Amino acid sequence: MTGLFITFEGPEGAGKTSVLQRINEIYSGSTQDILFTREPGGIEIAEKIREVILNKAHTAMHERTEALLYAAARAQHFFEKVEPALAAGTHVICDRFIDSSLAYQGHARGIGVAEVKAINEFAIGERMPDVTIFFDIKPERGLARIQEADEREKNRLDVEGLAFHHRVYEGYQQLITSYPSRIRVVNADQPIDVVVADVLAILNEVIGVK
Amino acid sequence: MTGLFITFEGPEGAGKTSVLQRINEIYSGSTQDILFTREPGGIEIAEKIREVILNKAHTAMHERTEALLYAAARAQHFFEKVEPALAAGTHVICDRFIDSSLAYQGHARGIGVAEVKAINEFAIGERMPDVTIFFDIKPERGLARIQEADEREKNRLDVEGLAFHHRVYEGYQQLITSYPSRIRVVNADQPIDVVVADVLAILNEVIGVK
Repeated sequence: MTGLFITFEGPEGAGKTSVLQRINEIYSGSTQDILFTREPGGIEIAEKIREVILNKAHTAMHERTEALLYAAARAQHFFEKVEPALAAGTHVICDRFIDSSLAYQGHARGIGVAEVKAINEFAIGERMPDVTIFFDIKPERGLARIQEADEREKNRLDVEGLAFHHRVYEGYQQLITSYPSRIRVVNADQPIDVVVADVLAILNEVIGVK
Repeated sequence: MTGLFITFEGPEGAGKTSVLQRINEIYSGSTQDILFTREPGGIEIAEKIREVILNKAHTAMHERTEALLYAAARAQHFFEKVEPALAAGTHVICDRFIDSSLAYQGHARGIGVAEVKAINEFAIGERMPDVTIFFDIKPERGLARIQEADEREKNRLDVEGLAFHHRVYEGYQQLITSYPSRIRVVNADQPIDVVVADVLAILNEVIGVK
């Protein structure tokens, strides 16, 4: 029995990472075998690539360079960490995956969703997540949350303008239309306890009660 | 008038870099406007990617990660440095370019030349060099030169076995067959002065006498 591959997606400030931490704590006492990881990064070589991608000094980064770096980090993380875990029967919950590239580089940067999908197929084959939870929050609300949160250092993507984040949101909406059975939508514009409960309900349904 | 885009290619230990230095010195006093650069790297973001690619500690690097990183570095270097120079009428001489990816990742690593060409077309479009000079040396001879040269620190690709370097050489031979009018072959297994003279003869023919 291979594990299930579950991804968390959403715009900046949707609270994915905080919710993922809470879910991690909740499941830590359970018998469920779950690996929590993130993109870009999640393993040494991919973390090095993450540093290049998110470095605020790299304002001259071309959008195609950026898309290729995400795909490179994805291949490494997938083959070295995600795939072996799934093969061993472990469920994997990953903070961001291919949909981020399709929404951010494909749609918002204007490269084209099909073109970005093609380099990701070069990276990891046609492997898509089994279930994706989309954290739905309007860009204005998400960005306001980032402004308020002092503890989070802003990276190269956080400092993009509101128009960019609107295009990201639009890109995600198109993906939800393209993959209606894979992508489940959670209202992320609620208190964190409510969002955690909504996400847990989906996880319990998908991988069984903890 | 746009400049000409000339690339130097060849297996490890072919002496490309040393010859390029000599050519650079020879042309430094001329009126020819030539930009000498190299891959992977040649500009800040691409040099950061180079560090990730060539780091000897990164033995776990997946071949698809490697191919995508080269393509990422290529896009950045091409759009930020090479293309503006060519547009300004400057000739560009670049140490390694797309043929390295086709020979090393496409052929020698076994990903497939067509697949690696496709992600490079994502990176830089269908732009190929105008002229490519292939430094022809048998893998055994090239590797022996690297062993002798103490001044050069060995990178992650230098330490690959002989079988890998044979496949690289074979990959280049196939490219020479595929692009007979673009790729010019120079016998690199000669004293450096002779190799420099042979390369200069081609450059003088292509971009005019210095």
